[in-house]
Amino acid sequence: MTQPTTPLSAVDLAEALIACPSVTPATGLVFDCLEAQLAPLGFTVHRTLDGAAPDGPVENLFAVRRGPPGSRHFAFAGHLDVVPPGEGWTSAPFLPERRGDLLYGRGAVDMKGAIAAMVAAAAQVPTAAGTLSFLITGDEEGVATHGTVALIEHLRAAGEQPDLCLVGEPTSVNRLGDMAKIGRRGSVNIWIEVAGREGHVAYPHLADNPVPRLVALLAELDALVLDEGTDWFQPSNLEITELVVGNPATNVIPPKASARLSIRFNDRHTGASLAALVDAVAQRHGGTTRPVISGEAFLTEPGDFSALLVAAVEAETGVTPELSTTGGTSDARFLKAVCPVIEFGLCNATMHKRDEAVALADLDTLARIYARVAKAALVVDAHAT
Amino acid sequence: MTQPTTPLSAVDLAEALIACPSVTPATGLVFDCLEAQLAPLGFTVHRTLDGAAPDGPVENLFAVRRGPPGSRHFAFAGHLDVVPPGEGWTSAPFLPERRGDLLYGRGAVDMKGAIAAMVAAAAQVPTAAGTLSFLITGDEEGVATHGTVALIEHLRAAGEQPDLCLVGEPTSVNRLGDMAKIGRRGSVNIWIEVAGREGHVAYPHLADNPVPRLVALLAELDALVLDEGTDWFQPSNLEITELVVGNPATNVIPPKASARLSIRFNDRHTGASLAALVDAVAQRHGGTTRPVISGEAFLTEPGDFSALLVAAVEAETGVTPELSTTGGTSDARFLKAVCPVIEFGLCNATMHKRDEAVALADLDTLARIYARVAKAALVVDAHAT
Repeated sequence: MTQPTTPLSAVDLAEALIACPSVTPATGLVFDCLEAQLAPLGFTVHRTLDGAAPDGPVENLFAVRRGPPGSRHFAFAGHLDVVPPGEGWTSAPFLPERRGDLLYGRGAVDMKGAIAAMVAAAAQVPTAAGTLSFLITGDEEGVATHGTVALIEHLRAAGEQPDLCLVGEPTSVNRLGDMAKIGRRGSVNIWIEVAGREGHVAYPHLADNPVPRLVALLAELDALVLDEGTDWFQPSNLEITELVVGNPATNVIPPKASARLSIRFNDRHTGASLAALVDAVAQRHGGTTRPVISGEAFLTEPGDFSALLVAAVEAETGVTPELSTTGGTSDARFLKAVCPVIEFGLCNATMHKRDEAVALADLDTLARIYARVAKAALVVDAHAT
Repeated sequence: MTQPTTPLSAVDLAEALIACPSVTPATGLVFDCLEAQLAPLGFTVHRTLDGAAPDGPVENLFAVRRGPPGSRHFAFAGHLDVVPPGEGWTSAPFLPERRGDLLYGRGAVDMKGAIAAMVAAAAQVPTAAGTLSFLITGDEEGVATHGTVALIEHLRAAGEQPDLCLVGEPTSVNRLGDMAKIGRRGSVNIWIEVAGREGHVAYPHLADNPVPRLVALLAELDALVLDEGTDWFQPSNLEITELVVGNPATNVIPPKASARLSIRFNDRHTGASLAALVDAVAQRHGGTTRPVISGEAFLTEPGDFSALLVAAVEAETGVTPELSTTGGTSDARFLKAVCPVIEFGLCNATMHKRDEAVALADLDTLARIYARVAKAALVVDAHAT
């Protein structure tokens, strides 16, 4: 056995967290476990239960270890809930098991492993370096109604204001360190309905078929070029994901027709601006719209924060991470309202799958990267990021 | 009471037919009743049971009273089945009831009343005038699979060939005699499906959304001008009557999208020519089609046949019938293959509704009109029509 380079082993910490079942929304045991890891390191732990059935209750935790007065504040953020394990695992999903070089268990990479690495990292950062905090939710994989959003409210009520925040999502693709996320696209779903007047197909002059107007409306929306992409984002994209008329009668002109869109958009837009754009097109064809915004786009433009992350990753792995904005949404969409935020974590190949696993060595390496990031972040000028 | 001008009362005959329940597909009693009316008039009655469940069995009847050798052959055609009565009748739908000037009962106008008028008319036509026949089906209101189509086969097998045919559908609108149908539009329904490749909306490059291709395809079809109408027909018309994707997931690009069209078309087209046209458009967008032709268009161009009908209606009512091709389909779409066919009958205001009713006076007037038509048709040169 190699002697661990950290006083606390990230692997041991990860095993302890995986052993606490925490299918989303998570409460209780897994938070007890994290509190037990943080308290001995000098953190003051605050825990809250937020929301009620059916979306809750959700447990949220924020823990702070205050540095010298006036010192900077660096936050680790993440989630302890996991997606359901599903069938077909080789070992029990909530009984962590080391086989070969890997540690198996639901949450190994998404993202109990990363939280374990954060705890191990915090143990390496002297209290004198500045203020460290943990912002951990039990509701990221679910509807996320009472998760990080509520956590941010508690943070503000407590008067805490991080300068920089790192989210431990599994952003690495082929090897630890090859990708970090400096932004994410936003997401909005829009329901469109066109009303007409029902009638018999043999007497179309007595009816008003809504389908051709919906078709024309959708053709116009499909032809829109929302943007050409930016330096950091791919072009915004609109998909028509549903069509509904619901007319079983071949000889009847239906009274209404509807569709649903999904738009993934970059920081050239907001959910509201896209909802207004779609509504204007719909109105021209006599349609109405109902938008539901899942998340706004965010971008932490490359600067001091990304530079210190890249330097930390290069120092520990020799790999230069690509700064990307691809993929789905994460809780960084909420945290961007608090301070600049970047996501960096383990390899995501097995996330949400059976036999989710993390390389034992990656846990230790990630702990060292996180420690370098925290130490550097506590001295960087946040306003320059 | 006015003394009836016919030896047989069309009202009495109609009451007898209405009293035999015959919701489509009809067999048995109602045909026994008609046979009992026709046999004393010298008709040889042929009855067949055609088809099996679920569309049958269906009863069909053809009755012939042969005139002198080489004489012309005039056919009355119609159906004894009726649509279900539904709820809310003032009197029992299959207990004919005279109230005021009206006779109430399911089938009063569509079309047991007209068949009664045909029988009363036949009694007024001397056998020496020529050959008369009745082509009566028990399956016009239903799927019509084993109705007039089968009847025509039996007719051909028996070597019978009418020169002209009158169908007793209720074509009059506001008063008896104001409209006759010299043609009907054809009807075809076409199902269209576009296949794609399912995927996540955040990764559209890994999927192939079929919806935009269906939308473009439908926009192209909707913009088609099938024709500008003809002297006798309104323009052919295409309606999109259904859209289906069936995708409940807002973040999923669906694997397929489909639609259904209904085209009502004039004699510039056939069901097959329109199916080919739609399929060509669909193929350009990667779609496939499945057409179901309900009926072809037909037209009996105005000529001697329509002229003798108009003269008969004018003589009995003072009204000049409009020669129309509007409305839905009827069994005339099949009979047009046998000989020139025109539809003329009672007022259709109450057809298919509760409290279906016919004016007592109209039944007698229609019998006199039908007798004039039959007598004139038996002397007209069929080849000039």
